[in-house]
Amino acid sequence: MFSKDTQILLCISSNVSEQENIRNLINGDRNCVFVKSEREALSLLKSRLRPSLILLDLDYPGNDYFALFSRLKSDPVLENTPVIILIPEDSGKEAFFLTIGAADVIRKPLAQEVLNRRIDNVINSQYVNDYLITKMYSYRDSLAEEHKKLVIYTKQIIKSLSSAIDAKDTYTNGHSVRVAEYACEISEAMGYDDKMLEIIYQAGLLHDIGKIGVSDTVLRKPGELNEKEMAAIKQHPIIGHEILSSITEIPLISYGARWHHERYDGKGYPDGLKGDEIPLIPRIICVADAYDAMTSNRSYRRQLSPLEAKEEILRNCGTQFDPEIGKIAASIIEKNISGEISFKNRETTFTSIFSPSNNKALYA
Amino acid sequence: MFSKDTQILLCISSNVSEQENIRNLINGDRNCVFVKSEREALSLLKSRLRPSLILLDLDYPGNDYFALFSRLKSDPVLENTPVIILIPEDSGKEAFFLTIGAADVIRKPLAQEVLNRRIDNVINSQYVNDYLITKMYSYRDSLAEEHKKLVIYTKQIIKSLSSAIDAKDTYTNGHSVRVAEYACEISEAMGYDDKMLEIIYQAGLLHDIGKIGVSDTVLRKPGELNEKEMAAIKQHPIIGHEILSSITEIPLISYGARWHHERYDGKGYPDGLKGDEIPLIPRIICVADAYDAMTSNRSYRRQLSPLEAKEEILRNCGTQFDPEIGKIAASIIEKNISGEISFKNRETTFTSIFSPSNNKALYA
Repeated sequence: MFSKDTQILLCISSNVSEQENIRNLINGDRNCVFVKSEREALSLLKSRLRPSLILLDLDYPGNDYFALFSRLKSDPVLENTPVIILIPEDSGKEAFFLTIGAADVIRKPLAQEVLNRRIDNVINSQYVNDYLITKMYSYRDSLAEEHKKLVIYTKQIIKSLSSAIDAKDTYTNGHSVRVAEYACEISEAMGYDDKMLEIIYQAGLLHDIGKIGVSDTVLRKPGELNEKEMAAIKQHPIIGHEILSSITEIPLISYGARWHHERYDGKGYPDGLKGDEIPLIPRIICVADAYDAMTSNRSYRRQLSPLEAKEEILRNCGTQFDPEIGKIAASIIEKNISGEISFKNRETTFTSIFSPSNNKALYA
Repeated sequence: MFSKDTQILLCISSNVSEQENIRNLINGDRNCVFVKSEREALSLLKSRLRPSLILLDLDYPGNDYFALFSRLKSDPVLENTPVIILIPEDSGKEAFFLTIGAADVIRKPLAQEVLNRRIDNVINSQYVNDYLITKMYSYRDSLAEEHKKLVIYTKQIIKSLSSAIDAKDTYTNGHSVRVAEYACEISEAMGYDDKMLEIIYQAGLLHDIGKIGVSDTVLRKPGELNEKEMAAIKQHPIIGHEILSSITEIPLISYGARWHHERYDGKGYPDGLKGDEIPLIPRIICVADAYDAMTSNRSYRRQLSPLEAKEEILRNCGTQFDPEIGKIAASIIEKNISGEISFKNRETTFTSIFSPSNNKALYA
C-alpha cells in the first residue's frame, strides 16, 4: 500500500541469535536497523533516525522492559511511533503490554507471514492516520489563511466605502471612524460580544454613506440651511439605507444608516420612530454621532469641550437619546476626560464577524 | 477510555458452546449480541443494529469464512466496522486474515485478558479515527460555512460601493455593472482564470468610484463641458484610486480606477501612460467602458448600435485601445450581435478570490 523504501524499522533485541532470526524473517524489502540496548537505540535516535516502527524483543525476561517501553513512549520524538512487542510464548504479558499502549504484541515462536503482516498492519494504520490528519490540517490551514485574507479585504473595502464619504465631504474628515469607535466603546460597556462590536463598528463607519447622494452645494454650504436644503440633507438616511440594502447578509449594517437621526421622543427623521421602535444600533450610533458633532469644529456653531458635550448628552437623555445609552456614554466620556480610558483604534482588533465559534477546537 | 455502554459487539459463531465460552470471557460491561450465522447477522443489521466491532469465530474449519468475511467488508453499512477473527490455534490462517483486512486475529485458546484488551484496542483506535475525522470535518464545515457567508458579505459591500456611484450620478445607472460584465467577457476570451475574472469584475464595478468626489453640477451638466469642468471630471481617476488605496490586499482593484482613461497611444489621463505601461486591467476596462458609453444614451451625443460601436472600437485600435484587446472585444460584440453568446450576469458565478485552491481535496 505504501512504499517500504522510506520506512525504517528499529529492532531492539539484546540477543544476537534472535536478532539474526528476526532479520531472516522480516521481508527483504524493509530497512531494518538492529540495536542491542536502549542506549544504542537512543544514540541512533540522536543521529536523527526516525523509525516508522519499533520492534521490541522481550528476549530476556529479567530485563525491565516495562521501564524501557515507558521511556520509549514518553520520548517526545517517539511518543507517536508504534511499538510491537515480541514476547516468549509463555510470558503471560500479552494483555499487559496491550493495555499499556503497545500497537501489537506477537507471541513467539515467530511465524514469518504473521510477523510481516502485523508489521504491515501497524504501519499502514499509522500511515492512514498521519495521512488523514496531515491532509485535514493542510486543508484547514489553507482555508483559514484564505479566510484571513478575505477578512482583511472586506475590512479594506468597508474602509474605502467609508472614506468615499470623506471624498465627498472633506468637512467631516474622520467623522465616520470616530463615530464607529465611540459606538463600540458604548456597546462594549453595554456588554456586547466581539462579533456584535464589529457589526456596530462597521455600521458606524457607514452610517453617513447616504451623504454621497446629497448635493455638494447643500453639504458644503457654510452657515444655516434653508427649508429646502434641510429637506435635502434629511434624505441622507434614506439614500444610505438604499445604498446598503444590498448587504442582506447583515441587515443591521443598513439600520445604522437609516435611523441614526431618529430621536427617542419620536421627533427625529426619517421615520419618526420612538423609544425601542428604533433598533439598538442606530440608538447607539445616534449618541456617538452627536458627541463627535458637538466636539468637532463646525461652521454653524461653536465646538464644545468633552465635558460640555457630556453635560449636553445627559441633558437630552429621554428626549433625543435613549436614557440608558446616554448615561453609559456620559460615564465613558467622563472616564476618558479623567484619563482612565482612551478611545482605542479598533480597526484591526476584530477577528471577524464570520469565523467559526470553535476555531480553537482543533488545537485543543 | 470511551463509554462501553453504547458499544455493541456482534459475535458470529455457529458453535453454541463456543458462544457460551466467549460470553463468559468478555467483560460483563460490554453489550454483546450473539448470532449463529451470517443470515441471522444480516437480519439483525436490517433492524438497524450498528455494532462497534464484529467478532467472527472460525469454529468450523469447513465453513467458507473467507466468503463471509468478504461479504461483511463489502456491505456498505459494515465496511468500516472492524472485524476480529478468532481462529483455532493450528488453523494457519492468521497471516491470511491479517492480509485481507481483519482488524486483528486472535488464536485460541482464548485468554480472557488478551481477548478483552485486543477488543479494547481495536475499538479505541477506530474511535480515535472516527472522532478525529468527525471533529476535523465539523471544523472544516463550520469554517467553510463562515467563509461562504463572508464571500457573500464582501460581494454585497462591493455592490453597495458601486451602487453609491449611481446614488451620485443616476445618469449612468447600471453602467458599472455592465462595464464589469463586458470586461469579464473580454478577459475570459483572453484565457484568464476564475480568480482573475473576479478581480477584474470587482475592478470594473468600482472603476468610476472617484465620481463620488466630483461636483454634482459638473457631473450632471447636460451638454458640453468647459475647460474647468473638464479638468474637474478628469480628477475622478485620481480620486477613485485614492478611495480604493485602502484595499492593499488586492492592489489591482485600484488600478482600474486610476488608469481606465489612459490611451494606448499615451494621450490619455491622468498619467499619460502608453502601451504596456498601462496595467492590463485598466486596458481591458477602458474598452469595456467605451463600449458601454457608446451604446448608452448620453445627452451630448447620439447612442450607437452595437455594430457601430464595434466598428468604432476597431477604428481606434492602436490609438485609444490596446489593439489585441480591442480585436477580442470586437469579436465578442459580433458574437453577441449574431446571438452566439449573451453577456452573462456574473455576480453570483464566482466562488471567491480567496478560497483554497484544493477545496475539493477532502471530498475526493
